[in-house]
Amino acid sequence: MSGISDYTAPLEDIRFVMDHIAGLDDLTALEYYRHADRDLVRSVLDEGARFVQDLVAPLNRTGDLEGSSLLDGEVRTPAGFRDAYRRLVQAGWGGIDSPFEWGGHQMPRVVGLAVEELFTSANLSFSICMLLTSAAARAVLVHGTEEQKSAYLPKMVTGEWSSTMDLTEPQAGSDVGALKMRARPAEDGAYRLEGTKIFITYGDHDMAENVIHLTLARIPGSPPGTKGISMFIVPKHLPDAGGGPGRPNDLKAVSLEHKLGIRASPTCVMSYGEDAGGAVGFLLGGADEGMRNMFTMMNTARISVGLQGMAAAERAYQQAAAFARERRQGRAAGAVRDSLIIEHPDVRRMLLTMRSNVEAMRALLYRTAMHQDLSRHSPEEGNRRWHDRCLALLTPVVKAWCTDLGVETASIGVQVHGGMGYIEETGAAQHLRDARITPIYEGTNGIQAIDLVMRKLPMDGGRFAGEYIDSLRPAVRGCEDLGWAEAAKSLSAALEALAEATGHLLNEAGDPNRRLAGATPYCTMFGMTAGGAMMAEAGAAAAAAGNHPKQVTARFYLEQILPQAAALLPAVRAGADGLFAMDAASF
Amino acid sequence: MSGISDYTAPLEDIRFVMDHIAGLDDLTALEYYRHADRDLVRSVLDEGARFVQDLVAPLNRTGDLEGSSLLDGEVRTPAGFRDAYRRLVQAGWGGIDSPFEWGGHQMPRVVGLAVEELFTSANLSFSICMLLTSAAARAVLVHGTEEQKSAYLPKMVTGEWSSTMDLTEPQAGSDVGALKMRARPAEDGAYRLEGTKIFITYGDHDMAENVIHLTLARIPGSPPGTKGISMFIVPKHLPDAGGGPGRPNDLKAVSLEHKLGIRASPTCVMSYGEDAGGAVGFLLGGADEGMRNMFTMMNTARISVGLQGMAAAERAYQQAAAFARERRQGRAAGAVRDSLIIEHPDVRRMLLTMRSNVEAMRALLYRTAMHQDLSRHSPEEGNRRWHDRCLALLTPVVKAWCTDLGVETASIGVQVHGGMGYIEETGAAQHLRDARITPIYEGTNGIQAIDLVMRKLPMDGGRFAGEYIDSLRPAVRGCEDLGWAEAAKSLSAALEALAEATGHLLNEAGDPNRRLAGATPYCTMFGMTAGGAMMAEAGAAAAAAGNHPKQVTARFYLEQILPQAAALLPAVRAGADGLFAMDAASF
Repeated sequence: MSGISDYTAPLEDIRFVMDHIAGLDDLTALEYYRHADRDLVRSVLDEGARFVQDLVAPLNRTGDLEGSSLLDGEVRTPAGFRDAYRRLVQAGWGGIDSPFEWGGHQMPRVVGLAVEELFTSANLSFSICMLLTSAAARAVLVHGTEEQKSAYLPKMVTGEWSSTMDLTEPQAGSDVGALKMRARPAEDGAYRLEGTKIFITYGDHDMAENVIHLTLARIPGSPPGTKGISMFIVPKHLPDAGGGPGRPNDLKAVSLEHKLGIRASPTCVMSYGEDAGGAVGFLLGGADEGMRNMFTMMNTARISVGLQGMAAAERAYQQAAAFARERRQGRAAGAVRDSLIIEHPDVRRMLLTMRSNVEAMRALLYRTAMHQDLSRHSPEEGNRRWHDRCLALLTPVVKAWCTDLGVETASIGVQVHGGMGYIEETGAAQHLRDARITPIYEGTNGIQAIDLVMRKLPMDGGRFAGEYIDSLRPAVRGCEDLGWAEAAKSLSAALEALAEATGHLLNEAGDPNRRLAGATPYCTMFGMTAGGAMMAEAGAAAAAAGNHPKQVTARFYLEQILPQAAALLPAVRAGADGLFAMDAASF
Repeated sequence: MSGISDYTAPLEDIRFVMDHIAGLDDLTALEYYRHADRDLVRSVLDEGARFVQDLVAPLNRTGDLEGSSLLDGEVRTPAGFRDAYRRLVQAGWGGIDSPFEWGGHQMPRVVGLAVEELFTSANLSFSICMLLTSAAARAVLVHGTEEQKSAYLPKMVTGEWSSTMDLTEPQAGSDVGALKMRARPAEDGAYRLEGTKIFITYGDHDMAENVIHLTLARIPGSPPGTKGISMFIVPKHLPDAGGGPGRPNDLKAVSLEHKLGIRASPTCVMSYGEDAGGAVGFLLGGADEGMRNMFTMMNTARISVGLQGMAAAERAYQQAAAFARERRQGRAAGAVRDSLIIEHPDVRRMLLTMRSNVEAMRALLYRTAMHQDLSRHSPEEGNRRWHDRCLALLTPVVKAWCTDLGVETASIGVQVHGGMGYIEETGAAQHLRDARITPIYEGTNGIQAIDLVMRKLPMDGGRFAGEYIDSLRPAVRGCEDLGWAEAAKSLSAALEALAEATGHLLNEAGDPNRRLAGATPYCTMFGMTAGGAMMAEAGAAAAAAGNHPKQVTARFYLEQILPQAAALLPAVRAGADGLFAMDAASF
């Protein structure tokens, strides 16, 4: 019987998607990335794989068992985390896709995402610190003054200083505009922040020498709601004259949450201004522009959270497949002795479902990262604009679809193990517990669906979504060319349903509740269908390359999973009447 | 913000299903149940509700936190469990549907199931002890000698002595036939059992004065596989001359599992024969007939486990609905101040999905219990036979479908809470953790699907399944009569797809792998569709009774959830080739 299986970086799968779905060669041919040739990318991934397999993956289970703790006002991460993080910083894993100018390696975001996948599958709790820091660095890069960039970016890019987002307050979760934290201007030109923030991931910890909080608060006199929110840099230690971590700021972690999963990752209640009249904060970007600027960080983080869903599913898949290749139980049809359970059709179905889900998610995620690269660095403006639109459209989709599916896939991983899956020592249950946060944080999946339907669909007067869906249609032809008639039929039906659903929601522009009512099934349908189109593209590339397993998983996804997408159409079209037919008290 | 919400027994919902789906009046009109009139049933449920709300539900969270423990060879259940169990025994909750002859109340199984629902929703961990004891009592009733019945049944029916099933061994999980435990005949006419059993729920504990193990083992010389297994009564304490618990037997709990959920319920490794040359066991039923006899217990327990899926979902729903009625966040369309989140369309969708799932599951479960009652006590033989067939067909369906859906529904409950759902203190995550065992134990859902397709579909030469599906068709007409055109269309499409899938699988009789390949999607499709037909019946009854909310949930289920059923047809029909197109090493 299998114990906790080690994680093996799926480098072939990642390279396949980088090459065939994310167009890596086109990216590395761009002027901005011209140093990042295939060999360099290959060696980065090989090194990354070794690093996480040796140092990070082994801390996944021990970190879950020990958890982070708060002792004497200091957060302690589990044994081994501090050392692994120090090595990560030394080896330069923090700044793969950050600009040379700030100490990064200036690789394509697609490559950055690949490295992120390795760390995330290896240890979701550990990796969150990196992902938050990269996302925050992006916000400082885009919105910071030259002075702020010089003071913070070099340390954030390496990870010497980690970072986190301080948004949520007890009364302000999904509704960020309800936040109340005050930021008073002080005579020194900075601000003083007072109040409480909750759910602050890695809000305090012992791995980095400083923690840079990007904090949302209100300057007195600002308008109410989202229009009166500003963003502040609030360092745990204020930078000293030499740029090092100087005197402690007036904020601290006052408690940690006891969570279903990601237990190694400290989720802090942060109290500002308890001891010295307010935490010193520096305005990042313009006053009252915090909400918009936050999205610079948030949009990057949302793709990373989508990746977490996939990465947890990949790890769960690896463990389930290893178990199924070792465990003997029952006789498969025609067998004369006990069979490995992987020979039973139903176990195969579970494993293929997991694997094809993972591959569809990975394809859509890396394609989204490609759009991000091209939106910034394509030489042609119209092209940049197209990819920027694609990125905007797909961001909520990958966040929501990949995280829902990540939970579902990790749950199948538990099931493959039978009774052993329910025992914590096996490790399968941890993947499910860890994955379960991903549909919730960085904007619940309900919020993603609303973003998709209310903000993204109406782009370009509603024309863009249709154009994007049309851009997926050639994949149907690809299936036909391979002789995959069932797959072609299924993809075609899904695309038709998606186009119809899109038209339906756009025509409901006058009634927000009717659009909102269909938002979640629409978002799921979008993810399944776009993922299906990518799987068709992957299948065609696999056929050309003689890659047999990728043809098997592509057909399985298209023929057996994708038919569910079109079946969501009635729920998208149903409107809000059914949802509000019963009064709240009757629930 | 809501804390842990109390459980409120959904008595109106239960009565609605008993009256309109399970035909309670027809059952209480049967000679065997003639004492159980409506008033008696009502007062039993009212009392049961009070009992679980006051004494059992409050132990759900504390039991999870404390867990059971093994100290000095004795299993201790969490604080309060022992006292609550003692009161349960005193109040007679153990024997609701057991015969008068053995101290039970001889109520219909439908009523027994209702009481079981109350205990299960209130506290899944606590309730498992009762369910195992009832299921074991059934096996003793059917297969025991008069002497065995006299010695054990009165105490098992009250619950003074609890019971459990000892099947699993490390190498024998889903494949029960692989078990190795030996039972040597001894000179006293009893047997001596030696070996180890794992995953034994309530294998030892401190709530009852004795634990009666129904243990599967092999008598030397028996044939290999399932044909050589016998069932034994192995009491923790051998009954003394006065019928009380006498000297300790030679078996003990040697460790407890650390599990994802149901943590209050002790899952034991039981060691037989470590100290005195073998545990004394008494053959129950014929030698080598243990496998068949075990199904007497197992089939009862499978319906109860299906109930657990639904009951966990009901509790999760209640908590989510309470939270959504209290928590304010964001403004719903047209609102001028912050809205209760229940006013947001997406939250409504989540709650209606949860509630209509629960109602569809409850309907199918109680209908199944009705078949059980009529299969035993209907005056007409042909009628008994019809209901016995229905019971056999539906048992794997309710076990698998209600438990998969229970997990999915409890997971939506977490989501409704947003970030609070991930914090253990909220309690929403416990329902998900607890529910996650139900697709695994009492035969994994993969095993259920195999049972459905390989053993149940071929009943009566394959005719019965088609007859059963035909018996659901009038529900389509019911929708039409109400003017629910979309619902009628959806149900009709699901029934067509189910009939086609059934025909397809029966035509694949020659190739077990092709049938096995479609088993799981077929089983899900069966549950959704049969549940859909029950929801249509419920909707018609609700319309006649002027029950508005039940019409809303019925339409929501039929119009927005049921369309997924027909979309499973491609996966049912796909056959095994795709599953085996890749070799095991490629996974």
